Amino acid sequence: MIRHARDGPGERNNRGNFRIQDPNRPGEAKMITRKGNPMISERMTEKLQKLASLIRYYILIMTTAAGSGHPTSSLSATELMTCLLFGDIFRFRVGHPEDPNNDRLIFSKGHASPLFYALWAAAGELSEKDLLTYRKFGSPLEGHPTVAFPYVEAATGSLGQGLSIGVGMALNAKYLDNLPYRTYILLGDSEMAEGSQWESIQLAAHYKLNNLIGILDVNRLGQRGETMYGWDLQAYEKRISSFGWKTIVLDGHSISEILAAYEEALRAADQPVMLIGKTVKGKGVPFIQNKNGWHGKPLNKEECERALKELGEIDKSLRGEISSPQNLRPKEPAFQKPLKKMDYPADKPVPTRRAYGNGLVRIFPQFPKVVSLDGEVSNSTYAEIFKEAFLERFFEMYIAEQNMAGVALGLSRRGKIPFVSTFAAFFTRAFDQIRMAQYSNPNIKFVGSHAGVSIGEDGPSQMGLEDIAMFRAILNSVVLYPSDAISTERLVEEAAKHEGIVYLRTTRGETPIIYRPEDEFPIGGSKILRRSERDVAAVIAAGVTLHQALQAYEALRKEGVFIRVIDLYSIKPIDEKALRQAVSGTQCILTAEDHYPEGGIGEAVKSVLTPSPTPVYSLAVRRKPKSGKPQELLDYEEISQKAIMKKVKELI
Amino acid sequence: MIRHARDGPGERNNRGNFRIQDPNRPGEAKMITRKGNPMISERMTEKLQKLASLIRYYILIMTTAAGSGHPTSSLSATELMTCLLFGDIFRFRVGHPEDPNNDRLIFSKGHASPLFYALWAAAGELSEKDLLTYRKFGSPLEGHPTVAFPYVEAATGSLGQGLSIGVGMALNAKYLDNLPYRTYILLGDSEMAEGSQWESIQLAAHYKLNNLIGILDVNRLGQRGETMYGWDLQAYEKRISSFGWKTIVLDGHSISEILAAYEEALRAADQPVMLIGKTVKGKGVPFIQNKNGWHGKPLNKEECERALKELGEIDKSLRGEISSPQNLRPKEPAFQKPLKKMDYPADKPVPTRRAYGNGLVRIFPQFPKVVSLDGEVSNSTYAEIFKEAFLERFFEMYIAEQNMAGVALGLSRRGKIPFVSTFAAFFTRAFDQIRMAQYSNPNIKFVGSHAGVSIGEDGPSQMGLEDIAMFRAILNSVVLYPSDAISTERLVEEAAKHEGIVYLRTTRGETPIIYRPEDEFPIGGSKILRRSERDVAAVIAAGVTLHQALQAYEALRKEGVFIRVIDLYSIKPIDEKALRQAVSGTQCILTAEDHYPEGGIGEAVKSVLTPSPTPVYSLAVRRKPKSGKPQELLDYEEISQKAIMKKVKELI
Repeated sequence: MIRHARDGPGERNNRGNFRIQDPNRPGEAKMITRKGNPMISERMTEKLQKLASLIRYYILIMTTAAGSGHPTSSLSATELMTCLLFGDIFRFRVGHPEDPNNDRLIFSKGHASPLFYALWAAAGELSEKDLLTYRKFGSPLEGHPTVAFPYVEAATGSLGQGLSIGVGMALNAKYLDNLPYRTYILLGDSEMAEGSQWESIQLAAHYKLNNLIGILDVNRLGQRGETMYGWDLQAYEKRISSFGWKTIVLDGHSISEILAAYEEALRAADQPVMLIGKTVKGKGVPFIQNKNGWHGKPLNKEECERALKELGEIDKSLRGEISSPQNLRPKEPAFQKPLKKMDYPADKPVPTRRAYGNGLVRIFPQFPKVVSLDGEVSNSTYAEIFKEAFLERFFEMYIAEQNMAGVALGLSRRGKIPFVSTFAAFFTRAFDQIRMAQYSNPNIKFVGSHAGVSIGEDGPSQMGLEDIAMFRAILNSVVLYPSDAISTERLVEEAAKHEGIVYLRTTRGETPIIYRPEDEFPIGGSKILRRSERDVAAVIAAGVTLHQALQAYEALRKEGVFIRVIDLYSIKPIDEKALRQAVSGTQCILTAEDHYPEGGIGEAVKSVLTPSPTPVYSLAVRRKPKSGKPQELLDYEEISQKAIMKKVKELI
Repeated sequence: MIRHARDGPGERNNRGNFRIQDPNRPGEAKMITRKGNPMISERMTEKLQKLASLIRYYILIMTTAAGSGHPTSSLSATELMTCLLFGDIFRFRVGHPEDPNNDRLIFSKGHASPLFYALWAAAGELSEKDLLTYRKFGSPLEGHPTVAFPYVEAATGSLGQGLSIGVGMALNAKYLDNLPYRTYILLGDSEMAEGSQWESIQLAAHYKLNNLIGILDVNRLGQRGETMYGWDLQAYEKRISSFGWKTIVLDGHSISEILAAYEEALRAADQPVMLIGKTVKGKGVPFIQNKNGWHGKPLNKEECERALKELGEIDKSLRGEISSPQNLRPKEPAFQKPLKKMDYPADKPVPTRRAYGNGLVRIFPQFPKVVSLDGEVSNSTYAEIFKEAFLERFFEMYIAEQNMAGVALGLSRRGKIPFVSTFAAFFTRAFDQIRMAQYSNPNIKFVGSHAGVSIGEDGPSQMGLEDIAMFRAILNSVVLYPSDAISTERLVEEAAKHEGIVYLRTTRGETPIIYRPEDEFPIGGSKILRRSERDVAAVIAAGVTLHQALQAYEALRKEGVFIRVIDLYSIKPIDEKALRQAVSGTQCILTAEDHYPEGGIGEAVKSVLTPSPTPVYSLAVRRKPKSGKPQELLDYEEISQKAIMKKVKELI
C-alpha cells in the first residue's frame, strides 16, 4: 500500500512524517560526507548502469500495465536521472520529503512520470506492486506527477512550468532560508519553445542562482514530430548561455560524462547551470528508439516482453542509495517590529491598492513567512510600501507574470506565503500557472490592482474585467474584493491566515472610508450597509460599485425610495445564507459590478439565489470599454449610481 | 472631427474606404520608386529632424492636455519612428490603412501611443485639434492604441504581444498573400522580460521571416526603475542573435544611423531583423530625460511650456511624406476541391476532436481564408487531418500558446480565418492574448480538445476544466460544445461563418452519433432530444455529459421516470427563450457539465433562468480530479449517468 500525501491545506505544515509502508524499504539513509571531486569508480559506474536497467524495467512494466503513459520520454532521461539520484550528487533524507535541507527535484517534463516513480522504486520507496497502480484511480502515482505522491515537489504536466517553480525554490534557499540545498529540474526539449522557460532562465541568471541546475533532455522528438532544433545541441547552448547560464553539453547516456557534468555544475560560483544532454527517445528498446510516432504510447504485452529481453538481466534486489544532506535550520527573519495600527481618518478617501501595501507591512511581524513578488509595477500596486519596509522579503519579478506565478508556487511549497501583485488584467497572463498551482496544495495570495473600467483613461488593455471569473474558476479558491482601506487591510490579514489560493482585487482610484478599524471581515462573509423595513430592492455590490450603490441609496432616499445595500466583499466563498436573508422582503435584487457579466458577481449571486421568486438583475460591463474619465465609463457601462437608480425604478 | 474605424464585426471586410476628414490632409500620396541604397541627403536629415521636433511637440501637448499618458516613453522612440515613416523606408497608402500592400506598424509598447498618434498627425492624417482629444471619452485616440483609430493594426497595451501579432502578419505576407509588405514592431526594453517575446523571436527565425523588423527602444527605464539590463545593448544583441535574428545596434537618436540600419534591415535575406537602439527616456526635454520617476506621467502646463521651449522652433506646417507601396494582388489559394459530404455511420462512435479535423477539411473550399495553427499536438487535436489535406494552409506553432494566439490575431487582422487548436487546458496559457484580441475586432476560432475529467488517465494537468469560464468571459464571444461528430462538423461551419471569437470544445473519447447530417446547429440554439408530457425533470447538458444524460434517460424510463434532455451545444450565446420553454412543466432543472462549477454551463443556465420558481441544480466537477478511467472519474465527480439519476430521484 502506498500512503497518500496529506492533501488538505490545513495539514500542509505537518511535515516530515511521510513514510511509505513498504517492507523492502532500506533502513534510514546514512549521512554521507561529500567527496570533493571523486574519481568515478568502475564499481559506481557498473552499479549505475544496473540501476538504469532496473529503472527501465520499471518504466516498461508500469506503462504497459497502465495501458497508457510515456515510456519513450522516460527512457531518454534514465541515465541523467539515475546518475543524479544515485551517483552521489543528490542530497535527500529518504522517507522525509519535507526536510528543508533536501535537494529538490522537479520533473518539468511531467509526462516522464514513469521515470520519476521508477527512481523512487529504485530508492526503495515504492514496490513493484505499487508501480503497477500507475494511472489507476486512487493511486498517488498519477499520469502526470501530482502532490498525491509526497516526493513530488509540485504538480507538472503543463509544459514549461517546472523551471519557474524551481527558481522559487532556489530563491528560497539562497535568499530566505539560507540553506545549501540545490534545485534540479528535468526539462524536455519540446517545452523549450514555451516563453515561460525564457522568463525563468532570465530571472535565474539575474538572481545568480548557482543552486539551480537544469537538465535538458534533448531527445529530438516532440509529440507529433521533430522539435524546432532537433539534435542541434549548440542551438540550445547558444541561446541558454546568452542569458548568462553556464552550459554543459554532454552525451545524456554516458554515465561518466553525466557524473562529470554534475560535478562541474556543483562548482558553479554565481550562475545557474544547464546540462544539455543528447539523448535518444525510447533508449534501450531498439525497435522503438529514436522513432517518430512513439510519443505517449505504451508497449503492448508482447512488445513489452520483447523490450524487457533487450534490457538483459535485471537485478530486482538492487537499491540505489541517496546521501542525506546536512541537518541545518532555515534562517528566520530577524526583524519583528511591533504590530502597527491602522490609521485612516474617516473623511479621507484612500485607494484600496495603497491599503494593500500598508496592510502587508502591518501584518508582516505576525506572518513572517510572507514574501512579496511584483511584476515591475510595485509603484502602482503599492507592493513598494512593503518593499521599502522589508527589502529582503521582496523580489522584483520584472514583466514576466508566468514566471512570477511559478516562483510563487515554488516559495509556497517551501513554506512561504507569497503575496503576488500586478494589475488584475495581467494575471490572465499566468492563468495556466495559476490553474496548475491548484494541484499542488498551494498557499499563494494574488493581488490584482486596477480592476475594471474605473481605472479610466488608460483604456481596456489595462482593465481587469475577467479576473473574478478566472480566479473563481479555480477549485477551492477564495476571491475577495474590498471597497475601502480598512476592509482591505483586514482582508490582507484574512488572506495571510487562510491556507490556499486567495485573490484580492484592489482599486486604482480613491474610495471613501466606510468601515471602522474594529470591524471584522471573515472569509465567506458579507455586510449589510443600509437596511430598513421599507426597502424595495436589494443592491449587492463590491469595490467601486458599492460606493455607487451607496450614492444611489442617498439619492433614492431623498425621493422616498429605500434600498438595501450589501457589500459582497467575499465573492467566493459566497455568503449564501446571509444573502438569502439579506434580500428577503425586497421586490427585486440588483447586482452591480465593474467586471464582465460572465463568471462575475452577478452569476455568483444568481448561482446561490436560484431558485428565487425575486427577480435578480445584473449590472455589469457589457459594452466594449474605452478611454475616458472613471465616472464617464461607469455611466457608459451602466454600473454607476445613475444606472442603479434607473434600474431600481424600472424594477419596482 | 476624427472618423472612427468601423467597429462592428459585420463591417470588418468593408475595407480601404477610411478617410479622416482633415482639411490639412495632403493629396493622394504618389507612388515613389524605391531607391537601391540612397545616399542620405542633408536635406532629408534636416527634414527628419524638424519632423521629430514637431512630433515631440505633439506628444507633449497631447499628454499635458489629457493629464495622463506616457510622454517620456514616446520621446525615446521619436527618431526611430520618424525615420521609419518619413525616411523613405515605410510603404503605406495614406488614407487607405486596409490596403493589403501596406507595410504594417505595430506599437508593442502601446503606452507610446502619443508617438503613434503624433506620427499620423505629422503625416497629415490627424489635426492638432484631434490630438487634443487624446484619452477623452469617445475619441478614437485612446490611452493605449485600439482599432478605434484605423491606423492601429491591433490593440496593444498588455506588453509583449505586438511581436506575435507581427509574426502573424509577416507569415501572411510571406506564405499566404505572397506580398512584399514588411511588418515593423516597436518594442520596449522592459517588455523583453515577457516570455511571449521569446516565443515570437524563436518562431520568426524558424519561419525565416526576413519581412519582420523589430525596433527595440532601449531607454533603460521601466515603470518603477531600471530594467534588468539597463543600457547593456550587448545583452539584448547576444540573446536575440542567439535565436537566429540579424541584429543591428545603433544610437536610437541618430538619424543617419537609424536610416542606415533600416536600409540594412531591408536587405535581410532569410532572417528577421532587430534594430537595438540606445535611447534616452524623455529625450528632448532635458529636465526629465533619463530620470527615474517619470514613467506614465504627463507634464503639467508650466512644465510643458518649459519643455516646448527646449524643443526650439516648431514648423507646424511641415508634413512627412510616406511612399505608397506597389499595387499587387494577394495570392488566392489555388485548390478548390469540391465539398466533401459528411459520412458518419450512425452506429459508430467518433471522437468529436476527429470530426473537427474532418470538418475543417470539408469546409475549406467554401472558406478559403481558413488557416490552421496548432501547438505541437496536431495528432491529438486532429488538426493534422487538415494539415495533410492543405499543408500550405497549416502552420506548426510548437508548444508556445501565447505566440500562437498572437499570430492568429495577426492573421485575422490580415483577413484570414485562423482555427487555432491545442488542448482546452492549454488555452489558459494564452488568456491575456485572447483577452487583448477582443479589442481588435478579431475573427479567430479557438478549438480546445481534451475537455474535462473524461480524458481519464493523464490526470488534472491535461484536463480543460476552466476553459468555458475563460472563453465566456470574453465580450461577444461564442462558446460551442458539440456532443457528436455531426454537430461538431456543423459547428465548425458555423464558427467559420461567424465573424468574431469562437471557442469550440471537443472531446477526447469517442461519442455515439446522435444527429443526422441534415440537422442544423445555429449559433445561439439548443436541441431538445427527449421530451414527453410526463417529464419530471429537465436535464441540460453538452458534450460528454449529454451522453450521460441520455443514458440516465433510458435507465429512468425503465423505472417509469421520464426526464427531458436538452443539448446546450451553444453555451454562449445561450438560447434563453427556448430554454425557458424547454424546462416548462418540469419540477426541477438539472445541469451537468464536465467543467468546474464557476463560469460554466450551470451558471450560464442559472443566469438566464433567474428568476425561476423551479429549482436549478448543477452537477459539475467539484472535487480535485485525478487519474483514472473516464467513467470512474465521471462517477467520482458526480456528473455521470448514475449521478444524474440519483439527483433526479432526490429532487422529484
